Amino acid sequence: MSKPPTQVRWATGRTEAFSDGVFAIAITLLVLELSVPEADREDLWRGIAGQWPSYLGYATSFLTIGGIWLSHHAMFSRLRFVNRRIIQLNLLLLMTVSFLPFPTKLVAESISEADVERPAVVFYGLVLLAISMVLAAMWRTVARTPELLEDEVDPAEVSRIALAAAPSMGFYAVVIAVAVVAPQVAAFGYLAIAVIAVLTARGEDVGADPPAEVLDGGDPAHDA
Amino acid sequence: MSKPPTQVRWATGRTEAFSDGVFAIAITLLVLELSVPEADREDLWRGIAGQWPSYLGYATSFLTIGGIWLSHHAMFSRLRFVNRRIIQLNLLLLMTVSFLPFPTKLVAESISEADVERPAVVFYGLVLLAISMVLAAMWRTVARTPELLEDEVDPAEVSRIALAAAPSMGFYAVVIAVAVVAPQVAAFGYLAIAVIAVLTARGEDVGADPPAEVLDGGDPAHDA
Amino acid sequence: MSKPPTQVRWATGRTEAFSDGVFAIAITLLVLELSVPEADREDLWRGIAGQWPSYLGYATSFLTIGGIWLSHHAMFSRLRFVNRRIIQLNLLLLMTVSFLPFPTKLVAESISEADVERPAVVFYGLVLLAISMVLAAMWRTVARTPELLEDEVDPAEVSRIALAAAPSMGFYAVVIAVAVVAPQVAAFGYLAIAVIAVLTARGEDVGADPPAEVLDGGDPAHDA
Amino acid sequence: MSKPPTQVRWATGRTEAFSDGVFAIAITLLVLELSVPEADREDLWRGIAGQWPSYLGYATSFLTIGGIWLSHHAMFSRLRFVNRRIIQLNLLLLMTVSFLPFPTKLVAESISEADVERPAVVFYGLVLLAISMVLAAMWRTVARTPELLEDEVDPAEVSRIALAAAPSMGFYAVVIAVAVVAPQVAAFGYLAIAVIAVLTARGEDVGADPPAEVLDGGDPAHDA
Repeated sequence: MSKPPTQVRWATGRTEAFSDGVFAIAITLLVLELSVPEADREDLWRGIAGQWPSYLGYATSFLTIGGIWLSHHAMFSRLRFVNRRIIQLNLLLLMTVSFLPFPTKLVAESISEADVERPAVVFYGLVLLAISMVLAAMWRTVARTPELLEDEVDPAEVSRIALAAAPSMGFYAVVIAVAVVAPQVAAFGYLAIAVIAVLTARGEDVGADPPAEVLDGGDPAHDA
Repeated sequence: MSKPPTQVRWATGRTEAFSDGVFAIAITLLVLELSVPEADREDLWRGIAGQWPSYLGYATSFLTIGGIWLSHHAMFSRLRFVNRRIIQLNLLLLMTVSFLPFPTKLVAESISEADVERPAVVFYGLVLLAISMVLAAMWRTVARTPELLEDEVDPAEVSRIALAAAPSMGFYAVVIAVAVVAPQVAAFGYLAIAVIAVLTARGEDVGADPPAEVLDGGDPAHDA
Repeated sequence: MSKPPTQVRWATGRTEAFSDGVFAIAITLLVLELSVPEADREDLWRGIAGQWPSYLGYATSFLTIGGIWLSHHAMFSRLRFVNRRIIQLNLLLLMTVSFLPFPTKLVAESISEADVERPAVVFYGLVLLAISMVLAAMWRTVARTPELLEDEVDPAEVSRIALAAAPSMGFYAVVIAVAVVAPQVAAFGYLAIAVIAVLTARGEDVGADPPAEVLDGGDPAHDA
Repeated sequence: MSKPPTQVRWATGRTEAFSDGVFAIAITLLVLELSVPEADREDLWRGIAGQWPSYLGYATSFLTIGGIWLSHHAMFSRLRFVNRRIIQLNLLLLMTVSFLPFPTKLVAESISEADVERPAVVFYGLVLLAISMVLAAMWRTVARTPELLEDEVDPAEVSRIALAAAPSMGFYAVVIAVAVVAPQVAAFGYLAIAVIAVLTARGEDVGADPPAEVLDGGDPAHDA
């Protein structure tokens, strides 16, 4: 191609801002699906409690998007530029993440209905699997293109993170298989994957002055 | 743990941007619940006035989220880095704040209906209590981890702010108790707490050159 | 009060980001009210055309919020810090702007219905008047507190802008009076005020190197 | 005009932030239209598959807005200031982009209904044509006002980009003509235009140190 270099890369600032906007909205729109049906309002506490499948869907999708945001954050903090492939994969990631409120609504409407809960939970899992595949493809692309990294970032570390992103696809595949036989168990399985992703999130690359043990919130010395 | 320091902390910029996005959306979605029912449209002024429980819910939730944003702003202006615990508590805070439109809708639908207004107002209060507990936990964590603060910030001041965040949980507990006997009084109580939080908001830590009295908008010399 | 100066002022960055988020969402939510009723779908072109009151409401509210954003932008570009009064007025501004989709919906539903279009259009105008009063109060506060301005900003210029914000309240008062006798004329009047506000928007204060005539998009030399 | 230079130009930062907010919300709201009707829930897989016109509309509008965001990003990365005409055209662009969820919903509801799919698909195309006309007008204005560009940007390159924006209006005109005879073919045509826009997106102007071939994600050496 004869295009000059100025046409095929982007600084990361606006891509981060736009992505943060989409993540923030997708995560917040989930609440719009919550409501207590008219018929359940006579005994309102019971009506509120009866919405548990909606709360499960809300928490799972919220924490899943939160975990993806943390991974996206970790990736972009290591990048100085993005190339066309990364910005395109990023749009694909945002498109699948924005889609998540739809299967979330299907799951919330379907749990406890014998015939429909299975396809709803499997479909939800397939969307989560698609999201994790796009995210893994982004990490692989970054690992293969060290020219895009910030100067102080170690390409070997990026490769390790890219490898570490792969198992989550395996977890989703397993839970989707579980969904075929036990949809409600699988629904909690998706929540467990999201919680683990948030609990084990990697930080930004922000240099190395303070020692890790001081900053790690998981250090029991800070919790005692 | 053998993880290098780069994995356990984050600069604050993107967390602020993402949080601002979620706060802005949660605060703006509240308007979607406002509408005049078909039956009340014949006498439209009366129909508009009849929606007062919705306006009360809108104003209370808007100002509550506004007050939380001010506190979040005050916290992050003092932080140079966040650790894993703070970023996780922040996600939990955003999850509870994003949830608020749901109990807001329940209160707006239930006020003046004898049987359902009590549980709706109590449930709303419990969500507000949960939000204030997460926010207080964030302040406590910041106060215990002075390594995360900007250089010029006084850790003792942060400890004082963290202590000052505690009473709001007490206020919510009292108003929830009031809600059991007098739900409508409690609904206005939540609004009062939110207004007070906004009126007494603390500033950022932006250095100390101009004298306080010049900048304090509450100074009557500027209002006369 | 004994509070140190660090508690009563804020740098403007995050307030701008949060406000931009609220403006962007309030302006974009307006589209959710647009739809063609089932009964009008047989002749879809006619159904689309029949929605003109909704388009009028959409354009008016969009351009009104756009004009407020331009004024907000002009104000904050001149500010180095905000004090408590400005941050509180800003929350009030965001609360009234976020409320606008509700009267917009009422107007769109009511135009051409003899009994209800008058109160809907008057109510819409009262909300616009409230927004312009809060914005004028913010400009007045800024003009009275030159300590908050960026170094290179001329306080006299800010006072002139603050004075220039006053007439818009008069315009709204006049159009509300028109609404009592001719609601549809008034509905177009609100649109005209919004268009004029956008067409005459003031710029940021970004220094003075390029000559004005080069940059003014209204210069016919660029349009010929 | 006698206005001083400070009133007729704006630095680009806040306009980018506000525009990113509107793009992010317009792109994310599209999911709210997705749902499986009650009648199709008995066989849920079939119900999910039956929603294909909605997915087509979702993907087309998402990728169209994504492509516009890429073009907007490329434009603003080359600008140091915007003048009044550009900021006004930008508001007009945001207004047409925010409007897109409405025709998207019409198309999703109308595909496969003989009488209504034609006007719905033509109307959708006309909105896309209007968006591309506003975007082309912005590029033309930038090309004519080199005083606004960042120092290192070549005005001749901007003129080339402005010229390259013109054909997309031609593509839309052709597909709208197709829509009159074959609406479903045209619906896929809009998707094709959006995919091509994303695949051929131009980068920011971020200087020229790394060679283009290293950064171009389309280089098969990185994919093998």
